[in-house]
Amino acid sequence: MMNKQWRLASRPVGEPTKDNWQFVETDIPSAKEGELVVKIEYISLDPAMRGWMNDAKSYIEPVAIGDVMRAGTVGLVTESKCNDFAVGDYVYGHLGVQTYAAVKPAGLHKVDPNIAPLPRYLGVLGMPGMTGYFGLLNTGQPKAGETVVVSGAAGAVGGVVGQIAKIKGCRVVGIAGGQEKCDYLIKELGFDSAIDYKSENVVKALKTACPGGIDVYFDNVGGDILDQVLTQINLHARIVICGAISQYNNTTAVKGPSNYLSLLVNRARMEGIVVFDNAKHYGQAAKEMAGWIHEGKLKAKEHVVEGIEHFPETLLMLFNGGNKGKLVLKVGE
Amino acid sequence: MMNKQWRLASRPVGEPTKDNWQFVETDIPSAKEGELVVKIEYISLDPAMRGWMNDAKSYIEPVAIGDVMRAGTVGLVTESKCNDFAVGDYVYGHLGVQTYAAVKPAGLHKVDPNIAPLPRYLGVLGMPGMTGYFGLLNTGQPKAGETVVVSGAAGAVGGVVGQIAKIKGCRVVGIAGGQEKCDYLIKELGFDSAIDYKSENVVKALKTACPGGIDVYFDNVGGDILDQVLTQINLHARIVICGAISQYNNTTAVKGPSNYLSLLVNRARMEGIVVFDNAKHYGQAAKEMAGWIHEGKLKAKEHVVEGIEHFPETLLMLFNGGNKGKLVLKVGE
Repeated sequence: MMNKQWRLASRPVGEPTKDNWQFVETDIPSAKEGELVVKIEYISLDPAMRGWMNDAKSYIEPVAIGDVMRAGTVGLVTESKCNDFAVGDYVYGHLGVQTYAAVKPAGLHKVDPNIAPLPRYLGVLGMPGMTGYFGLLNTGQPKAGETVVVSGAAGAVGGVVGQIAKIKGCRVVGIAGGQEKCDYLIKELGFDSAIDYKSENVVKALKTACPGGIDVYFDNVGGDILDQVLTQINLHARIVICGAISQYNNTTAVKGPSNYLSLLVNRARMEGIVVFDNAKHYGQAAKEMAGWIHEGKLKAKEHVVEGIEHFPETLLMLFNGGNKGKLVLKVGE
Repeated sequence: MMNKQWRLASRPVGEPTKDNWQFVETDIPSAKEGELVVKIEYISLDPAMRGWMNDAKSYIEPVAIGDVMRAGTVGLVTESKCNDFAVGDYVYGHLGVQTYAAVKPAGLHKVDPNIAPLPRYLGVLGMPGMTGYFGLLNTGQPKAGETVVVSGAAGAVGGVVGQIAKIKGCRVVGIAGGQEKCDYLIKELGFDSAIDYKSENVVKALKTACPGGIDVYFDNVGGDILDQVLTQINLHARIVICGAISQYNNTTAVKGPSNYLSLLVNRARMEGIVVFDNAKHYGQAAKEMAGWIHEGKLKAKEHVVEGIEHFPETLLMLFNGGNKGKLVLKVGE
């Protein structure tokens, strides 16, 4: 048995290719004093990973060339020389795209496979869930009766945003690519309306779906859709900038929102969020979300792909609209 | 004597030309019951006027083709058939680009030429002053020790913003076009630093002038300067969108801020303002600003051009950087 790793070989220009990755097999590490070894079972694939591959100032350091790719993971403790975790514990941590990691316990926390399936701790009970929860509630500040629009709605964050907005009494409209995803939003997640940006005129569809205009827009995609939404916002609208997946593989400049002066006309606000800022409050959020899941108000869906060897092409599903729900890579066969 | 009026003849494409205006001489109006007649003495020329010429949904109705151009004015009451104002009173109101107006008293308020010169009621004691005051304090929320950058800094709003930021204990950097304006900002208005966007590399100059980064940016210009500032903002920065004078005469799409994802990286906010929303609090603001003027902390400068017949070309000074301080048209010779 070897430790399989995907390391960053070079920085991508545009969409990442196989050449940007190096597949390495090394010995399985063992724990030094104060460390533990985790056998990684599930790896989280997130749009933010594309940003971490760039050599640019951001909210977190870039992954260095030659380093194992950063990723959120859940796995089983197989060796422990620390007091915090014992062999047999399941843990969450940013342990990277590999099958084993020997690490210090800082940044890890236990998860319980009896309470929820392990991949869920990478989705609604993990960073995407926290991102949706804090981004919508703290920054979007939706009020009952308002209209909330979310893009990338069939993704891990978007699905959480829409469902929490429903819980808060809002009219919820999702934007996603393809009829199948739109059906999923309405039939499975309980959205009021869904817009297929691939086949519909988005401005026209927004006018129909949001007859009272848009009060909160949670943006995961940027690009044209952000501009189209800006034409339909209400006075004092809040736009939450969570991501811009349509722009992450650009080889030219990011497309800025040409309609940003709608912020002026409507005295509206556009604000960026980074989930890590809320770390102190994750526990409280997890508790509230667990309650909603228990009541059947918050549904979770993971899109699991098997085999760590498929990491490079699986990551690309995020950018070509291939996943419905939280995209997770299962390490083993 | 006739009433001289500038009416909107057609909607401009790009920069307004003489063809967009019609100069009309009509009889001087008289007051009906409940009305008064004002002899207009000073006309405010503001960047927002360009927007009012477009047939587009905005925070205020467009000026209709054939109507007298909307403008803030101060003038003398020459006839009164209402109880609120008497002949001899000086009043402020949106009475348009003309020499006489017969109107109802709603929306007018008295001004006192013994307290301040009349043009000042169109500048620091008028809408530009209120815009700077509320936009900076309510939306920019500057704290002592923070760095505030303002563009269009030598204009009517920009000068107020910078001086109030100084009063609040901030480091203040102005962006303006030309060395003369930059000297004016530092020597007359007390800015800490000034950047001449016409001759300097703005990003490099911002790095030098704002060694601690930018906490508040008050944007009057949009375009490249907004994008350049976005590269230098701090965590939790506030960007106040007051206007985008660089874009108002565009014949192609407005340039959206390509660097808007800096809002995400920095958990920063961009918010639009319209001064009229603060109408209920004008009185309190005027009182506070009058105090600052009295103490010599808030200086006012008007750039007065004489002759209503010069309205079309004088308006263009706003877009080619011709004015230093509040641009005002004096009606008489």
